[in-house]
Amino acid sequence: TQNAALQSISDVWECIDSHTRPLTAELIPSHASLHRVLAAPAFAACDQPPFHQSAMDGYAIAESQNNTWQIIETVFAGDMPSLPLRPDQCTRILTGAPIPDGTLAVLKQEDCILDGSSVGSARPWKPRENIRPRGSAFQQNTPLIPAGTRITAGALALLASAEIQQLQVRRHPTALHLVTGGEVVPAGFPLQPGKIRDSNGPMISALLNEANIPSSIQHTGDDPSLLSEVVASFTGDLLLISGGSGPGDRDHTLQALTESGFSIHFSQINSRPGRPMIFATRGHQLAFGLPGNPLSHFVCYHAFVRRALARLMGTPAASLESATIHGDLLDPHGDGRPTWSPARISLDHSIQPIAWKHSGDLSPLATANALIFNGADQKKSPVAPGPGTCHYLPL
Amino acid sequence: TQNAALQSISDVWECIDSHTRPLTAELIPSHASLHRVLAAPAFAACDQPPFHQSAMDGYAIAESQNNTWQIIETVFAGDMPSLPLRPDQCTRILTGAPIPDGTLAVLKQEDCILDGSSVGSARPWKPRENIRPRGSAFQQNTPLIPAGTRITAGALALLASAEIQQLQVRRHPTALHLVTGGEVVPAGFPLQPGKIRDSNGPMISALLNEANIPSSIQHTGDDPSLLSEVVASFTGDLLLISGGSGPGDRDHTLQALTESGFSIHFSQINSRPGRPMIFATRGHQLAFGLPGNPLSHFVCYHAFVRRALARLMGTPAASLESATIHGDLLDPHGDGRPTWSPARISLDHSIQPIAWKHSGDLSPLATANALIFNGADQKKSPVAPGPGTCHYLPL
Repeated sequence: TQNAALQSISDVWECIDSHTRPLTAELIPSHASLHRVLAAPAFAACDQPPFHQSAMDGYAIAESQNNTWQIIETVFAGDMPSLPLRPDQCTRILTGAPIPDGTLAVLKQEDCILDGSSVGSARPWKPRENIRPRGSAFQQNTPLIPAGTRITAGALALLASAEIQQLQVRRHPTALHLVTGGEVVPAGFPLQPGKIRDSNGPMISALLNEANIPSSIQHTGDDPSLLSEVVASFTGDLLLISGGSGPGDRDHTLQALTESGFSIHFSQINSRPGRPMIFATRGHQLAFGLPGNPLSHFVCYHAFVRRALARLMGTPAASLESATIHGDLLDPHGDGRPTWSPARISLDHSIQPIAWKHSGDLSPLATANALIFNGADQKKSPVAPGPGTCHYLPL
Repeated sequence: TQNAALQSISDVWECIDSHTRPLTAELIPSHASLHRVLAAPAFAACDQPPFHQSAMDGYAIAESQNNTWQIIETVFAGDMPSLPLRPDQCTRILTGAPIPDGTLAVLKQEDCILDGSSVGSARPWKPRENIRPRGSAFQQNTPLIPAGTRITAGALALLASAEIQQLQVRRHPTALHLVTGGEVVPAGFPLQPGKIRDSNGPMISALLNEANIPSSIQHTGDDPSLLSEVVASFTGDLLLISGGSGPGDRDHTLQALTESGFSIHFSQINSRPGRPMIFATRGHQLAFGLPGNPLSHFVCYHAFVRRALARLMGTPAASLESATIHGDLLDPHGDGRPTWSPARISLDHSIQPIAWKHSGDLSPLATANALIFNGADQKKSPVAPGPGTCHYLPL
């Protein structure tokens, strides 16, 4: 176990990556796969289109010496031609309908001259024009969606059109959020003098919910033996512990993790907020000891826990982006320690820090959609990507 | 009723806006408000912090002539001081704990000289330092979150910390998706020759699901009387009809809407895809007749239906953004008609069109996260915002 303070955000991210393995896969019905992450590529189960198809409303024509054809039937989308074409015959056909055997091309309706039951061509035409051959979009057994893709509404439409019934997706991780601290009162309980309402609980529950992660929550107060017991018997994938990560008299998180067989990979990092922050693993299980202060909790979830979640799901992790900054990004502490600040990024990709009074003030969370990263990351990031710009993490 | 083709995307959007009213509000518990849209501002129900609070681990000090204080007790976060301070007394205090009556300032632990049970100051101090006064983050009855805000995980934390139990949010709209066309076969039914699988159903269901809109689906085949009956008896907020919006023999959407008392605001627009597209209202109910082709369906949902949804929810509508384009954006039709194309926007805000073979090819939907808008919008948008750039709508 390694206990030194990690000095750069890149080091922290690399440490998290190197100790986190993608979850196993499970087979689920495609129709239930919205927002799930593919663990293996999805292969087409049919040709698309499934038959030679007309791309236009018009006439499917056979060969003809004099460019004139007798109409033998009409085929709407969904119907099948009942007759093959012989020379000098054509079939009136609608967009999406299967073309009859013997079709050389489909002439667009507006390029035809209709004379009773016969059709002539008003323009030169080319063989195969306005025909979508069977399998021309994709063929059966073609890989359609790569592993690591999160299934969107559009992807669901593609899966349906490709007759893909089942998918290999990453299993949902299961999470437990432990809220420590005798001063923290869960929703629904009266707030005695000196106590504060638990806001980390609803925050983490919603964040995990948005990441499709079923979670439960437990409040352990200031009882170190209850904390140790719950950590020891934890059977899920991701354990988030709120508070108690520092070195204080009532900080028991590090001890509870160590005693329960977790290996501590770091317990301090060079980040504001987040200096006292723990990352530990036990087999495939991950644990984070996060600062109890809600604004710090929020930042550390986005900057560090999400990194681990991406790795669990086999998806690319969010990385620092750059944007034009509006307003001042002061370093109120003047110590140059890398700092994350809530901010709002606009549609024009400019970013504005959100003013906040102190770490007990959660008002910035009402509208924050980004975290500005202010400070040098010794390994990779310069202080800012250019004059009037900054690095940020989108939320 | 007005039936002319609208010529610019701005005209279409303005028409949708002008015929769509925000939904009524409903009162719900705050803890169930994730992703809901505030219909009224949320006001703080308590002061934050709820008491004068120490911002540091250290000593709450009273007045003293000689800058030395006797420690009378220790107060942890969550505890209450049992004794007020008298001159020359101090209380050991932890971050977040309530300060005792008589406190002038909190001295940081590292700025103090501890001598048995008495404390001296190693530095000059200022009155009120390291104290967060009650209500200094926000005060009871202050507006905290403006109307029109979508509740995020961060906002939930703020609501909890402000003891806000209930919120006025926009009612969920209810939607019905009608899939017309005899060739379209829903999931779970065998695909006879000449038929195609319904992909619009799963697509729209997922898109509405992501927008928190409960929806149901009905397949009406090619039966115009069934379509008319369902449209006439529709009692929800949003009716989406897939297919049958054009002027063809089997296109019954316009007639069904008109006969059922809907006012048609447009039935054609200058957009590819989407030329035959219907927007109609009946009282507060909205109806869209969307192209049945799945790629067109997808585009028209994002470009037009989402506009109406934003207006129903009282949120800002997504507007065209600009980005650097990688790759060529050809106009394969050469007619200059404004065209939407699936594209992928990267973290560096460059955008790349996704190649697709024909409108039956849904492969681009696996990875599309933007629609490039190619073409002049006569009213507002130039052809492109600059050389090597384009307009796009984020998905």
